[in-house]
Amino acid sequence: MKELEERIQKDGNVREGNILKVDSFLNHQLDIGLLDDIGAEFYRLYQDAGINKIVTIEASGIAIASLAARYFHVPVVFAKKAKSRNLDGDLYTSVVHSFTYGKDYNVTLSKKFLHAEDTVLLIDDFLADGKAMDGLLDICAQAGAKVAGCGICIEKGFQPGGARLRGRGIRVESLAIVESMDAATGKLCFRAQ
Amino acid sequence: MKELEERIQKDGNVREGNILKVDSFLNHQLDIGLLDDIGAEFYRLYQDAGINKIVTIEASGIAIASLAARYFHVPVVFAKKAKSRNLDGDLYTSVVHSFTYGKDYNVTLSKKFLHAEDTVLLIDDFLADGKAMDGLLDICAQAGAKVAGCGICIEKGFQPGGARLRGRGIRVESLAIVESMDAATGKLCFRAQ
Repeated sequence: MKELEERIQKDGNVREGNILKVDSFLNHQLDIGLLDDIGAEFYRLYQDAGINKIVTIEASGIAIASLAARYFHVPVVFAKKAKSRNLDGDLYTSVVHSFTYGKDYNVTLSKKFLHAEDTVLLIDDFLADGKAMDGLLDICAQAGAKVAGCGICIEKGFQPGGARLRGRGIRVESLAIVESMDAATGKLCFRAQ
Repeated sequence: MKELEERIQKDGNVREGNILKVDSFLNHQLDIGLLDDIGAEFYRLYQDAGINKIVTIEASGIAIASLAARYFHVPVVFAKKAKSRNLDGDLYTSVVHSFTYGKDYNVTLSKKFLHAEDTVLLIDDFLADGKAMDGLLDICAQAGAKVAGCGICIEKGFQPGGARLRGRGIRVESLAIVESMDAATGKLCFRAQ
């Protein structure tokens, strides 16, 4: 997606430790016009996939999933990273290793909101090692829900998540795939799509 | 807002401990059509307030703020509840007591994304004791940003947050104000607006 690639080149910052900061438009401050265009692009890609629910993970996935869901006319369910006492005991749970936070955490999703009849689009801001997606896929498997595919804003193509998921036969649509990036020069190259 | 009140009566669940569960449409599974209508209502109320930024707090506020922001054509910034190593050191921080989780946590927002020139709408799903709003107001005060007001989906009118904020002269627009609720009977009454 040209608009997203251009925005990453303009406002993204490459940092040591394979960190790409896009917090000025994607995951802290949110450029809602861009996110709306991203939602429209996910709809273009997945409109014929029979999706009746979008599943994402808090917090960065929520805005993207919500704007995409306007096009699909389906509800969003977001998996939670901590057990609240407002959540029922009847939860799907999976353990995820966070690249960003450097630790494991539990992901939970209420059994009320995901079923074997559901066909799901999984949305997230980043795909790197793919651990968050593994957690969401695990939860969908527990529910018996069909996964139509993953909608990713930025895939780090030099980390193994995307290749591993595609190798499992999962459809992965990444709107920008970073092929390489260099914290010393700030230079960043995209995979041609 | 009649649509929201009716939805709370239909799908909300009153639990012991002053808990109102609305996780089937507002803060775990998200009814995007309803949230879009909520966003339009916040725009109707605040369209002449000169708002150039919407500030909310992860995770439940993000979807509501994002759909509202489409009407205002302004960015969203969401305050974070935990320090990520992807966040710069240059943060506004405030301590918030969570009614939901029963503990204190830090709220952070990057200084890059809130300034003295900003006129802000603060959005959240619930207003009860008002501690999350206190944290966001504190962060806006640190930035010198002007707060046009608060946009709340559900205010628990029997808890002190709303009265306290209005007593400070802050404009608070709550789309549904629960006057009383009873876990034993499930009965719930709204304040006439």
